[in-house]
Amino acid sequence: MSTQSSSPRTEIHRLPQRGHHDQATIHAIIDDALVCHVAFNQGGSVHCLPTACWRSGDALYIHGANNSRMAQALAAGECSVCITHLDGLVLARSAFHHSMNYRSAVIYGQFCEITDPDAKRAALNAFVEHVSPGRSALVRAPSRAELAGTRVLHIPLSEAVAKVREGGPKDDDDDLAIPVWAGVIPVTLQPGELQPEADSGTRLPATLPGVLKR
Amino acid sequence: MSTQSSSPRTEIHRLPQRGHHDQATIHAIIDDALVCHVAFNQGGSVHCLPTACWRSGDALYIHGANNSRMAQALAAGECSVCITHLDGLVLARSAFHHSMNYRSAVIYGQFCEITDPDAKRAALNAFVEHVSPGRSALVRAPSRAELAGTRVLHIPLSEAVAKVREGGPKDDDDDLAIPVWAGVIPVTLQPGELQPEADSGTRLPATLPGVLKR
Repeated sequence: MSTQSSSPRTEIHRLPQRGHHDQATIHAIIDDALVCHVAFNQGGSVHCLPTACWRSGDALYIHGANNSRMAQALAAGECSVCITHLDGLVLARSAFHHSMNYRSAVIYGQFCEITDPDAKRAALNAFVEHVSPGRSALVRAPSRAELAGTRVLHIPLSEAVAKVREGGPKDDDDDLAIPVWAGVIPVTLQPGELQPEADSGTRLPATLPGVLKR
Repeated sequence: MSTQSSSPRTEIHRLPQRGHHDQATIHAIIDDALVCHVAFNQGGSVHCLPTACWRSGDALYIHGANNSRMAQALAAGECSVCITHLDGLVLARSAFHHSMNYRSAVIYGQFCEITDPDAKRAALNAFVEHVSPGRSALVRAPSRAELAGTRVLHIPLSEAVAKVREGGPKDDDDDLAIPVWAGVIPVTLQPGELQPEADSGTRLPATLPGVLKR
């Protein structure tokens, strides 16, 4: 199993037994994500913004409008990216031992912009495929103007760390007899009833994203 | 409808029609959240980490172990907090017009630590109630040592902004005849089958969190 290179920033100080630095764990967390949060400094302030994401190879990709302040700031300086999947609510017999099950990944580094049009097209195709497998061949491809108006950025996963909690509550022995329900309420992101456009009803059905099939 | 005070940091430059500064919209987004992402600077780097959150009055609350580096950093400097709910995948006839429906809130400011033990107890009770209404009266309350080992922090919502996208794809007229399914795949966080602890099966059932009932 391949291991990402770690750094002082990717050391887990708090509950280190939950930390993972192997590539398979980090890739799986990113591949289950549709959205990441990006932290960066701009104009003397720290910012935290959500954006869609996908993975190709050993890098995380995002995109944005050419005139987006975030895309401009990310091309210019360091950032941190976080993906979090909430997997369950852990209900204990004591307030203190309540917890949540989750899988999170944090990436440090700097985004690099893809400027080659063919590479941009390939990256944006991969994004459509991530959201709905098989779809990129069915939709109109980006025009030259659309491509020129879009920034595509990627950040290597070379400085990344995952943190995972799973399992039930860890109650103190003295609390085990407290007569309250204890256990895990698992939670997952689920698709609801499809909402087709009015004139789209008889067309090919949507392929659900792989991340919703778990 | 009450309005949060805005600032240059909470102006929406990109797609300003999606921006909201009213208290009701911002409170509703926070009240639907179990997890937020916090961006802060520490040790010369920008960090983005997830943590559980809840709201009381016009403030967002988080907690952490006394020795957590994040809690220490947040008590010492400015940060940005982001909550994001992914509500749907918007599938258009062109790759370019694919989008996501979401509700997000971003808060700027500095966390303040609650040191009074009674106020800490009340805040942590509110957290348990947020996760499972009615539960705080059924579980063992925090001991003095547990309380002393926990930091509770809150940040005012006075500098906050929400951004919301809803509805279907906005395709170009020329693309409407493309024979591909177009519309919205709504997504929600849903509870799975409860996983009780082995000796907890006959106890009171868990109350599902309000955020999962939508």
